[in-house]
Amino acid sequence: MKIIVDAMGGDHAPGEVVLGAVNAAKELGINIVLVGNEEKIKLYLDEQDPRIEIVNAQEVIGNDEPPVMAVRTKKNASIPKGLRLLKEGYGKAMVSAGSTGALMAGGLFTLGRFEGIERPAIATMFPTRKKPALLLDIGANSECKPKNLAQFAVMGSIYYREIMGVESPKVGLLNIGVEEEKGNSLVKTAYGMLKELKNINFCGNVEPRDFFDGNFDVVVCDGFTGNIFLKTVEGLGFFLLDQLKDEIKRNITYALGALLIKPVFNAVKAKMDYSEYGGAMFLGLDGILVKCHGSSDQKAIFNGIKVAKKFVENDILFELKEAIKEIEGEIKC
Amino acid sequence: MKIIVDAMGGDHAPGEVVLGAVNAAKELGINIVLVGNEEKIKLYLDEQDPRIEIVNAQEVIGNDEPPVMAVRTKKNASIPKGLRLLKEGYGKAMVSAGSTGALMAGGLFTLGRFEGIERPAIATMFPTRKKPALLLDIGANSECKPKNLAQFAVMGSIYYREIMGVESPKVGLLNIGVEEEKGNSLVKTAYGMLKELKNINFCGNVEPRDFFDGNFDVVVCDGFTGNIFLKTVEGLGFFLLDQLKDEIKRNITYALGALLIKPVFNAVKAKMDYSEYGGAMFLGLDGILVKCHGSSDQKAIFNGIKVAKKFVENDILFELKEAIKEIEGEIKC
Repeated sequence: MKIIVDAMGGDHAPGEVVLGAVNAAKELGINIVLVGNEEKIKLYLDEQDPRIEIVNAQEVIGNDEPPVMAVRTKKNASIPKGLRLLKEGYGKAMVSAGSTGALMAGGLFTLGRFEGIERPAIATMFPTRKKPALLLDIGANSECKPKNLAQFAVMGSIYYREIMGVESPKVGLLNIGVEEEKGNSLVKTAYGMLKELKNINFCGNVEPRDFFDGNFDVVVCDGFTGNIFLKTVEGLGFFLLDQLKDEIKRNITYALGALLIKPVFNAVKAKMDYSEYGGAMFLGLDGILVKCHGSSDQKAIFNGIKVAKKFVENDILFELKEAIKEIEGEIKC
Repeated sequence: MKIIVDAMGGDHAPGEVVLGAVNAAKELGINIVLVGNEEKIKLYLDEQDPRIEIVNAQEVIGNDEPPVMAVRTKKNASIPKGLRLLKEGYGKAMVSAGSTGALMAGGLFTLGRFEGIERPAIATMFPTRKKPALLLDIGANSECKPKNLAQFAVMGSIYYREIMGVESPKVGLLNIGVEEEKGNSLVKTAYGMLKELKNINFCGNVEPRDFFDGNFDVVVCDGFTGNIFLKTVEGLGFFLLDQLKDEIKRNITYALGALLIKPVFNAVKAKMDYSEYGGAMFLGLDGILVKCHGSSDQKAIFNGIKVAKKFVENDILFELKEAIKEIEGEIKC
């Protein structure tokens, strides 16, 4: 199996990306196509590894560039080039820690949506008190229709089942109350749609404060709400950590105490680290595209490649397509 | 000045509520009307205090009761009774740690909105790296129009100025990106409206992860988004704390370290404690109604009463009404 890796995406590219890809090739027994600046990539490659191939791409799309414009004008940047290779079947999946917007725009442009999908979603795992929970959409669609949420629920269920090995994942709808009549018109209509779907295990509304209890496996929402949730988690996490650090600096006893429980902080940080779960997945695109966090280190890239491999092996894309076809009749717009 | 206090609202009522009210009467030099079960209230009153008066209300509205139904059927519960006293002018403001829904429903029913207001909002302070920031609406309106957000911005600015003493509070729009074109149709239209408003200091979009930097004083959003934000903060806060506790239990060194830095945790918890800032305020109702957190202790009740007093003294309600009248011509629906 050959997996395409965008060597230039992310804060620590190409170094950490190349190292993660090399490990993946070795440990997962796959071939890697590194797309990016050949000279720079070679700095991180020890020897001639037959499992690693480089496709040169001189340009890079930055996180701050308007995505649609960037993928149209920089056709030879690593993201568009990688996506074209994927489309042509040169690799089975693609992994990138680059601009989410460019990946989405390029993905739509080059791979397209598969049949029946109006809106692809971005899905990612969050830690909870129990198993990790998958949230989607975390930001691909600022505006959603109830039907989109129903499709997200179906795709999320398949993804979770295949990746986490849970037969019938519990699906929840992110809302501001647990009662059926709670929320805005989008979630109220979506609730009615979700409870009618036969091929998912819909368990009702979930409030963000209960999300972390881990009683739901797959939680759906529109991309605006999901992105608010994601960025609140990130923002509050860093804020709390900084507050603790500031307080610890106040005296020597605290500093000593902090030293003693340093492994505790590290353990919690590791648990909160969603790179552990292989990054985010674009569901609904006609291709397998994994997005790793921009701050990904080699371990995160490795995990992203691992998820991509599982996606290919379990033929999840095929299953997604079949499931979306199946529910087409069930969903009334 | 006489302030009405719902003695029966909150998890620690009536004990903590009565104690907080007694302190407020003493320290703030005001009179208090305690509304609730007279017998139970008297258990917490030491002596005959001329500044404390009890108005008997046998019934209580629980947090789990459907709010609209509850305020209609339990007319003599502490919330509806207190609101009627407020409406009749028996007190200048009301403070309650009871059901938010019942307070909103009862507030709309008994006090009504003031002129020009379509949707009252609930506003509350959050800690940040700098000064606390006011977020509204945190849950009164699941569905909002751009005009509502403009009114929230104006009301929030006045509230922040008067309570925090900041001449020209920086107003932000909660969004999933900083660029003007980001977000759903609601925030995109609201952005255009906010930047035209002359009597606020609009500074653009703010992402939840930057919210905690404290570069904005007043942040507006629809009640669905605000409630998602609020509950994510609560949920993640407790989750992180539990994770730390679990890890600390793993060995004796950690336990010792944790003991040494206990004051650090307490300091951070105190900073995160929004009861510090006097609870949440219903803005847009034709009366001064402060909602304290359900888990309020006497200090939180005291702070709620203190904010209510400031609201009365600074004649903030009058200012809100004038400002809403003023912008009426500026806002195009």
